[in-house]
Amino acid sequence: MVLNTQDQFAPVLESLRSTAVARDQAGGHAGEAKEALRAAGLLRQAIPTDFGGDGQDWAAVFDTVRRVAEVDSALAHVLAFHHLQVATVLIYGRPEQQARWLTPTAREGLWWGNAMNPLDQRLVAEVVVGADGEGYALTGSKGFCSGTRGSTFMTLSAALPGSATPLLAVVATQQAGVRVGEDWNPIGQRQTDSGSVHFARVPVATADVLRRPGEPPQLRQSVRTCLGQLVLVHLYLGLAAGALAEARRHTLQHARPWLYAGVEKAADDPYRLQRLGEMHLQVQTAAVMTERAVQRMDALWRRGAALTPEQRRDTAVAIAEAKVLAHRASLAVGQDLFEVAGARATDAALGLDRFWRNARTHTLHDPVDYKLRRLGSWALHQEFPADFYN
Amino acid sequence: MVLNTQDQFAPVLESLRSTAVARDQAGGHAGEAKEALRAAGLLRQAIPTDFGGDGQDWAAVFDTVRRVAEVDSALAHVLAFHHLQVATVLIYGRPEQQARWLTPTAREGLWWGNAMNPLDQRLVAEVVVGADGEGYALTGSKGFCSGTRGSTFMTLSAALPGSATPLLAVVATQQAGVRVGEDWNPIGQRQTDSGSVHFARVPVATADVLRRPGEPPQLRQSVRTCLGQLVLVHLYLGLAAGALAEARRHTLQHARPWLYAGVEKAADDPYRLQRLGEMHLQVQTAAVMTERAVQRMDALWRRGAALTPEQRRDTAVAIAEAKVLAHRASLAVGQDLFEVAGARATDAALGLDRFWRNARTHTLHDPVDYKLRRLGSWALHQEFPADFYN
Amino acid sequence: MVLNTQDQFAPVLESLRSTAVARDQAGGHAGEAKEALRAAGLLRQAIPTDFGGDGQDWAAVFDTVRRVAEVDSALAHVLAFHHLQVATVLIYGRPEQQARWLTPTAREGLWWGNAMNPLDQRLVAEVVVGADGEGYALTGSKGFCSGTRGSTFMTLSAALPGSATPLLAVVATQQAGVRVGEDWNPIGQRQTDSGSVHFARVPVATADVLRRPGEPPQLRQSVRTCLGQLVLVHLYLGLAAGALAEARRHTLQHARPWLYAGVEKAADDPYRLQRLGEMHLQVQTAAVMTERAVQRMDALWRRGAALTPEQRRDTAVAIAEAKVLAHRASLAVGQDLFEVAGARATDAALGLDRFWRNARTHTLHDPVDYKLRRLGSWALHQEFPADFYN
Amino acid sequence: MVLNTQDQFAPVLESLRSTAVARDQAGGHAGEAKEALRAAGLLRQAIPTDFGGDGQDWAAVFDTVRRVAEVDSALAHVLAFHHLQVATVLIYGRPEQQARWLTPTAREGLWWGNAMNPLDQRLVAEVVVGADGEGYALTGSKGFCSGTRGSTFMTLSAALPGSATPLLAVVATQQAGVRVGEDWNPIGQRQTDSGSVHFARVPVATADVLRRPGEPPQLRQSVRTCLGQLVLVHLYLGLAAGALAEARRHTLQHARPWLYAGVEKAADDPYRLQRLGEMHLQVQTAAVMTERAVQRMDALWRRGAALTPEQRRDTAVAIAEAKVLAHRASLAVGQDLFEVAGARATDAALGLDRFWRNARTHTLHDPVDYKLRRLGSWALHQEFPADFYN
Repeated sequence: MVLNTQDQFAPVLESLRSTAVARDQAGGHAGEAKEALRAAGLLRQAIPTDFGGDGQDWAAVFDTVRRVAEVDSALAHVLAFHHLQVATVLIYGRPEQQARWLTPTAREGLWWGNAMNPLDQRLVAEVVVGADGEGYALTGSKGFCSGTRGSTFMTLSAALPGSATPLLAVVATQQAGVRVGEDWNPIGQRQTDSGSVHFARVPVATADVLRRPGEPPQLRQSVRTCLGQLVLVHLYLGLAAGALAEARRHTLQHARPWLYAGVEKAADDPYRLQRLGEMHLQVQTAAVMTERAVQRMDALWRRGAALTPEQRRDTAVAIAEAKVLAHRASLAVGQDLFEVAGARATDAALGLDRFWRNARTHTLHDPVDYKLRRLGSWALHQEFPADFYN
Repeated sequence: MVLNTQDQFAPVLESLRSTAVARDQAGGHAGEAKEALRAAGLLRQAIPTDFGGDGQDWAAVFDTVRRVAEVDSALAHVLAFHHLQVATVLIYGRPEQQARWLTPTAREGLWWGNAMNPLDQRLVAEVVVGADGEGYALTGSKGFCSGTRGSTFMTLSAALPGSATPLLAVVATQQAGVRVGEDWNPIGQRQTDSGSVHFARVPVATADVLRRPGEPPQLRQSVRTCLGQLVLVHLYLGLAAGALAEARRHTLQHARPWLYAGVEKAADDPYRLQRLGEMHLQVQTAAVMTERAVQRMDALWRRGAALTPEQRRDTAVAIAEAKVLAHRASLAVGQDLFEVAGARATDAALGLDRFWRNARTHTLHDPVDYKLRRLGSWALHQEFPADFYN
Repeated sequence: MVLNTQDQFAPVLESLRSTAVARDQAGGHAGEAKEALRAAGLLRQAIPTDFGGDGQDWAAVFDTVRRVAEVDSALAHVLAFHHLQVATVLIYGRPEQQARWLTPTAREGLWWGNAMNPLDQRLVAEVVVGADGEGYALTGSKGFCSGTRGSTFMTLSAALPGSATPLLAVVATQQAGVRVGEDWNPIGQRQTDSGSVHFARVPVATADVLRRPGEPPQLRQSVRTCLGQLVLVHLYLGLAAGALAEARRHTLQHARPWLYAGVEKAADDPYRLQRLGEMHLQVQTAAVMTERAVQRMDALWRRGAALTPEQRRDTAVAIAEAKVLAHRASLAVGQDLFEVAGARATDAALGLDRFWRNARTHTLHDPVDYKLRRLGSWALHQEFPADFYN
Repeated sequence: MVLNTQDQFAPVLESLRSTAVARDQAGGHAGEAKEALRAAGLLRQAIPTDFGGDGQDWAAVFDTVRRVAEVDSALAHVLAFHHLQVATVLIYGRPEQQARWLTPTAREGLWWGNAMNPLDQRLVAEVVVGADGEGYALTGSKGFCSGTRGSTFMTLSAALPGSATPLLAVVATQQAGVRVGEDWNPIGQRQTDSGSVHFARVPVATADVLRRPGEPPQLRQSVRTCLGQLVLVHLYLGLAAGALAEARRHTLQHARPWLYAGVEKAADDPYRLQRLGEMHLQVQTAAVMTERAVQRMDALWRRGAALTPEQRRDTAVAIAEAKVLAHRASLAVGQDLFEVAGARATDAALGLDRFWRNARTHTLHDPVDYKLRRLGSWALHQEFPADFYN
């Protein structure tokens, strides 16, 4: 069953929305909310129908992510990272692996976590020879492991001394030797469980290896980065759209006209309307550019291994363009919503600052100025690298 | 023959580009350049094939307008206004009128001018009874009559005392009683011949009336406004894209790195790349939003009289969104091109200030703040009027 | 003893800074921190030496406020509002009243609270005749009563039915019939105790009346508004400067260069330096414009009742100019500090989002767009009203 | 006689203003306008009274420059560069040289031109021995030689092969071997005569040498850069203020309210007032920061050779801050004046685009992004170099 119609999903969103302020304040693990997403069948959206999933295209998958982000961008993050690990298995995994992991994921609604961050090289793999033949043992830590807590599986990268590229593998989260830290306490995106995970001689069988250490990266694999960046884009876009929705709601329902405005309703104030026009334009523009990027993504995805460097590049450029716009929209609308909603909107019980805090936290993932530099280089030289951040 | 392939049209564009600086400086009537556009067959682009035209959709027609605007936005304006008058005949005219006017227009390549501006109410119609029955005589003036000089026909509006809505009609430009002023001398868009036209008892036969005075406007007719706004959008977009192209050219060919930049080539300067990234993003975003608006326009146009108010509204909203972006892009890129091209780019022989001057002149057509207010009202109330400026 | 040298005051500031994050999180009443300010002698800064105060000029008083705001803008608010009530007594009070209230305030370090807000007209005065002659009884509520909790006195305004202007008076906070609500729980400026105060037939003797209901306002009295606006300006400025100080600290101590920056230290990153340059420029400009406004304020204050409307107006214009700049600087620097400090700066333990939250909450006091409209009116017509918001 | 009162100078300004549009269009040499400045006694403003000058401080000198720039920034540039060469003689010259050159300059009203640009190293000095002993012969060219045409003297720099620092000297403009090119034809600042000067074995006697080749620069000499930067700041500020004055004039006299504004006069339009508020704020802020920088400059100047590196640095920082603000104000106000003045203000006869063209041309002198980088470095490291561009 493809779950994405407004009717079916609306109660889940409304429920998330009604608890978002309290959960943002509490931080920590969002067990109940995650269960609601699982129960709604969302974990199988990106899994091919061959494995019992919904086989949705990325446009549909990310549309759900954005809608969740409009009311709770932390939960949207956890959901999107689940999809990203599913995609990782589809990109790197052999058919047997895909079937072995994704079938139960779809059938039972299992969560995936992430310990892939290649910039964090503290996790080290050691070659070991066990009863089942050669394998690896993992020792060390990984940071920013979104969604790992409460997950069944996680993807990870680990350095093997002497190898140019890291080991990529899948491990079961719930096993001896794996300890998921509860050390994620930021100013925003508080319930993403993006803390650290610690490994003490955790075994990895050859059958669970996605890419052996030293194996050269392939163009097809770099598509994972495009998906990872699209996750960010949709979270930012959802934050901006969610903040605009609150600005609209408060202007219509609660805001009062300024003493000197000369209008009877706040909704007729010329400056409020002007600001709402700016906010709308930012959200709408980011949305359209995002839609265009996702369309390129779906086309790229459908090409599978037959993708060309030009197609990969054009997709990455479109994603980068959307990302800068969505980044800015999320911060600007998160800030300006108060300008139109007015002083009463600063009541902590409403928790409307969470849009800005979530945006501010998440938009630091990679610096916007360097994204602009790349777009400038693209405009000038028609070059755009296919690296981890594009 | 549909003329729009890059190959066929490129020499015309290059020729316009090579004379643009001199013509901008000279101002006045661009007889030769207009003849080149005519000779290239552009005047029949929007005319249906039934009347011998190319029957292109608006996406194709405006694509050509934008490309002309990249090198010469004044000529692009004259060309686009020709198309707008063709559309006016298609929107308001009876089938017999359409055939009578558009067939020779397509066959002989005749120019149309504009004297429609409803805000200028100095032109007055008087009911007269002549040999051919009842008709009108027109006396007075119209301003901002783009493209009228050198045209064969013009569309016009004229007030009839006592009537709520004006007379709309077509008259031949070259006739006794019509005097086209040579009084257009602005700081930008200098060769659009947007001066005044004076009328001294110019007769209008009933057969040439598009809409009688007092006749109520119809929703279908309001589509002309959408097209008129799209003309502006494409001129702005072309100006922004043209300025970016010059910024790129000069950065690659002439610019020198700043003394303290610590790079060998201007093209590697981190701040220049950042600015180029911003400029690219503005142009690209305006282009995508414009493409979306034109797609809605073409869908609306295909509906003919069956269009709905919602479809009209959604098209107008998309056009307004694109317009604000293109407006800003044209000014910003026209200004920032110098930041990246450097001090040598201020040589008057290069005439690179024409992008900003053209944008600045043309973007005053209707105030951007009021467009934002309308978008704010749309965001808040889901209302968007179908009037002359939307 | 005039307490304002860096040496003496530095430990108080450092102490406030070290507890600011925890107190922001806790919200509520800042009893200990307020005691530290009192113990440092700050409550007598604005009180004339005749009454045992330090008799500092406004430049000195606000300089301290700004320095407190750099580390804790909520406490700075409470302190500044104390001074504002002292000023209120100096502006409205008769010499006998000034001596009676300000002498113990200076001697014993008593706090003043505020219940003056003229927009909130729920507090009603009733004429009563008691043993001491005619007086008033107050019933109703006031909102946004900053600093009232824990205060000894408060100033207030109350409507008298039928009177054009309200009663202004001083009442003792700690008395039967006065209930200070603990209902202030916003997203920023959390420890300002700006909740509501409820009055149940609280008596006001004639001797405690600052201005009788119906008495026309005088130009001299409008100076209180200038001081009130300067309080806001200095809080915004302190917030911006404090955020910049944190940006600097983290860039130098903790930030890491971006993967593709090609520099060894974050402090050498060209984009970080550019942003720091922008932030510095915003803070510095707001500071200079604020200093200029305070100088006009001190000149105005020294004129006493001899001030002219032009002098009042020029002071208000300078304050409005500084206010828009400081408003924008507080939001922009509070947001951009993360851009330079990097992702690790979002750790909730650092509480660096408090700068933006405090700025966002406080900058909604009066809408910046209307301030700009007034400055535009000033630029165009040389008019600037002397009302409650100028 | 110190000429700087509004009354005496107003007719000169009004005369410059009335011819500015025509002269901007004509370009070339502004002989008559320069004569008017000379006749008004302006050439002696910066010359000490000992030499017969007015001995004005820099605040007064630059105030006049700014006022001229409000109506004609090209003439203001020529005037300011004259003062800069006078300062060059005061900074580098021996007392005998100062008396010899500045006395006739003050008495007869002689113009000075500039051929100092150290980045242009095409002019080469050769050691020659003549009848009067050792000297130099100059051969080659210099670019951007503002004000040289029509001047009596010029300062110049010339490279001596093998010397680390160039020869600095004064030569008479009107002599065999010197040819002043008429090759200055830019899009703005058109009448500054900033073309090239060509030298063919032009002799320089030892008595006319300001600094011998190879002589190390001294801190005191670096003050010339501060003055050069202040010239730019005042031109930008004058351009911004002049554009605002035109915006005001047109809004009050000619502008018409927008169709949907719902106001009777353009001057009451809420968005126009908002924009005017922004423009006013930009001009006012740049003006105050400039005034502060000039005050530091005058204090530095009064110190003479006793200046400290810290004082030099603090002056340069203040100038850089003012420069970024004035740079931006000149472009923004030059652009936005049309937004408030309306479409009719684009009439070429009004020439209102000259503000933007002049600003755009002149603000490319050194890149604003690198100035921001330096301010960022100042904010972070408290370092600010004393080089040619600070």
